[in-house]
Amino acid sequence: MSRLFQNQPEPCSVSELARRARAAARNLAVLSVERRNAALRAAAHAIKQHQLEILVANQRDCHDASRAVAAGHLSASLLKRLQTDEQGIEAMSRCVREVAELPDPLGQRLAATELDEDLRLYKETCPIGVIGIIFEARPEVIPQVAALALKSGNAVILKGGSEAAHTNHVLASIWRDALSHFLDIPAAAISLLHSREDVAQLLNMDKEVDLIIPRGSQKFVHYIAQNSRIPVLGHGEGICHVYVDVAADLQKALDVAFDSKVDYPAACNAMETLLVHEQIATRFLPVMVSRFISAGVEVRGCPETLTLLPESNLKAAAEADWSTEYSDLVVSIKIVKSTDEAIEHIDSYGSRHTESIVTEDQTMASYFLERVDAAGVYHNASTRFADGYRYGLGAELGISTSKLHARGPMGLDGLTTYKYKLLGDGQTVASYKSGKRTFTHRPVTDKVEEEKPTQAKPAEKEQRPRLSWSISILL
Amino acid sequence: MSRLFQNQPEPCSVSELARRARAAARNLAVLSVERRNAALRAAAHAIKQHQLEILVANQRDCHDASRAVAAGHLSASLLKRLQTDEQGIEAMSRCVREVAELPDPLGQRLAATELDEDLRLYKETCPIGVIGIIFEARPEVIPQVAALALKSGNAVILKGGSEAAHTNHVLASIWRDALSHFLDIPAAAISLLHSREDVAQLLNMDKEVDLIIPRGSQKFVHYIAQNSRIPVLGHGEGICHVYVDVAADLQKALDVAFDSKVDYPAACNAMETLLVHEQIATRFLPVMVSRFISAGVEVRGCPETLTLLPESNLKAAAEADWSTEYSDLVVSIKIVKSTDEAIEHIDSYGSRHTESIVTEDQTMASYFLERVDAAGVYHNASTRFADGYRYGLGAELGISTSKLHARGPMGLDGLTTYKYKLLGDGQTVASYKSGKRTFTHRPVTDKVEEEKPTQAKPAEKEQRPRLSWSISILL
Repeated sequence: MSRLFQNQPEPCSVSELARRARAAARNLAVLSVERRNAALRAAAHAIKQHQLEILVANQRDCHDASRAVAAGHLSASLLKRLQTDEQGIEAMSRCVREVAELPDPLGQRLAATELDEDLRLYKETCPIGVIGIIFEARPEVIPQVAALALKSGNAVILKGGSEAAHTNHVLASIWRDALSHFLDIPAAAISLLHSREDVAQLLNMDKEVDLIIPRGSQKFVHYIAQNSRIPVLGHGEGICHVYVDVAADLQKALDVAFDSKVDYPAACNAMETLLVHEQIATRFLPVMVSRFISAGVEVRGCPETLTLLPESNLKAAAEADWSTEYSDLVVSIKIVKSTDEAIEHIDSYGSRHTESIVTEDQTMASYFLERVDAAGVYHNASTRFADGYRYGLGAELGISTSKLHARGPMGLDGLTTYKYKLLGDGQTVASYKSGKRTFTHRPVTDKVEEEKPTQAKPAEKEQRPRLSWSISILL
Repeated sequence: MSRLFQNQPEPCSVSELARRARAAARNLAVLSVERRNAALRAAAHAIKQHQLEILVANQRDCHDASRAVAAGHLSASLLKRLQTDEQGIEAMSRCVREVAELPDPLGQRLAATELDEDLRLYKETCPIGVIGIIFEARPEVIPQVAALALKSGNAVILKGGSEAAHTNHVLASIWRDALSHFLDIPAAAISLLHSREDVAQLLNMDKEVDLIIPRGSQKFVHYIAQNSRIPVLGHGEGICHVYVDVAADLQKALDVAFDSKVDYPAACNAMETLLVHEQIATRFLPVMVSRFISAGVEVRGCPETLTLLPESNLKAAAEADWSTEYSDLVVSIKIVKSTDEAIEHIDSYGSRHTESIVTEDQTMASYFLERVDAAGVYHNASTRFADGYRYGLGAELGISTSKLHARGPMGLDGLTTYKYKLLGDGQTVASYKSGKRTFTHRPVTDKVEEEKPTQAKPAEKEQRPRLSWSISILL
């Protein structure tokens, strides 16, 4: 199958591959946004064009996987995630085109300060460099992260689930092949690892790789974090709560809690525990619980909930329930005496992902939003809104529950860092220490365009050094 | 001595101390900026007022340290860093007052998007939470980091060098005592660890502590990073270069390179290697090297440099020299054929700290600034400018060579993260999936002030739930 594609890299060691990625990253960092977008559009087109090859490879993966499911070695849900079709491929292509339409995340000026006359400091966004992304069996991840990485000027090293090996191979080949027409984009801008041993090696390449993003189960993310010498950005678990305050509009509470649990229970932004103020529990919980039960949700209650609803035969929630991410149609319910108790519970058991309060009391809403420490704090809205697309970020790389660098749904911003550019005229620190000069520290307001990045390599012709030696240098 | 101070916390385990810090952080996060600044001014005043106690404690530390120096157990330079005097204490107090004058880093709106009618998303800065800061023997670090932490609403757990134990104890006591008059600031906002075993325990408290910042030698920072389950932000080494291009103004090159090396060679932003374009080496290096030698700088040259300056009897630079942070009056010099070779050298041996090009060719300057991957990239300026005060950040917590979260000189910004606040009216994701509603994703331009943080705890009086149950909930 790989004969179809011209631009196959020669096999090489993981360390060599990482070194090539590092070199590629240097070139990607200075590509103009027009070139990056043109390459993205070419890749989107190629995905559509090679639809058949993708489908054939995917069928081969699915065939192997369904045998593994039959033999009990693989879960049926994994097989479902693995499968793609024409619509899936159209969606991949569209996602890449949409990334091309997003604003350029590079070269954004975050701050500009005049330190002194002819001494200006600019803080500007730039790519991170080389990013390793390790993910499980969803084939659409390759075009998605490859697009985000290219748009943000980063080189990527990808490792997908072995179940999707054929699909991933074809997708990566199509991508590389489409980009091979862009002579300023190195082939090593994207590469694919093949085994777990490769991943283990990659996690040690801290000179070449700047960031590891694992996507997958909590256990998997934890394993990567524990075994990497490279910074890891990923989401751990999602234990999200909805708190129904005494002043809640009960219709909104019902809708928000139901949506948070039932819309897609496998997602990390689904609610696991519902917290209810004791003064409205009697009115709210009977209707809420019967709606949950009708939708097939297993309800586990705190002692007060069980007492309140004796006829529902609810299961009792054990201590472990409060810290469990069910990822399924199961919900635990706890009745609390106050907003403070709800906040306390969230602080003890939550995973700082997304937390929602339902109330008509604006003061209480602010109280909750300010005090709860989470990537997302919501008022009268479903936790399921925690998503890059819904936030309007265009595309999402994952949801970070880390507090550093990127928090919450992570789009292109999470793939950039910044550097400080200082433009001077020969200034020394000694002259500021001696008092000869003093700092002005004024914000620069005019947009000086003179020192913008250039794509062209300037000619290194011989040039006479300026004859500005002064007598002082001989002292 | 501690009898002087009223607000001594009872001794407790490191884990209990971390839990108290976490609880304190929740309160600090919602303090108004007026209260935070008032507390800072009170602390600044207290430091001045208790000058005598600080001096007595410092003399005791210095007395012990000078005996250790005499016995060969401690370096004389450490003793020098340990010593403070009236001017030093005045500077500590001034630093705290200056932090009070800085703009509020919290509650800054980074983005505001209308997702739909009555559904608005705000991205706002907030504190990180609990930060552990581990530093060596400089006593001025306590007021400096305590001030930055309080201003940014974070709780801190500090561990200073054991040589400064008495000084640190008195400084922390003064700080806590001054803040004890602020009943809304918990005592656990700042606490002090006493032993290395305490630090080892702290590095495991990843549920309570959000970030560890080590300040000190490279070896020390590396040890912390390798042994922490908590994210670590610190600077590793500073291997900075100055590259003198063929089109350099030689006077500027001389000044910039001399200042970069000689102004304060122990600093991480000092130059370690000077790169010189071969076409100006003959004119530039004789004067540069003789100026270095006159200033007591040991020069180690590449073979071409040695050939060029046979009469200078320079030492030959070994391979290890290119990756050594001398932190002393030693410089290595390498002659390169091109800017690309200079960039290549910096990429291989630099530590991504601060890199400077000296040239009058703007195109070449841009070429260098875009391609070099470092926290600071300079044109015609000394690497010694890489400093929070010189950058106008007000105060500095350290210089980060990490690419994630904070890069370069790190001020209050490095101590904040952000959260997304979503303000809705009962919206569910299901209604957007079904097509009943669509996202608008419009930037919010008006500054709506209605849901600003409130300091006061709203009364939790019994309230009738709104009678807005509709028939749909019974379906």
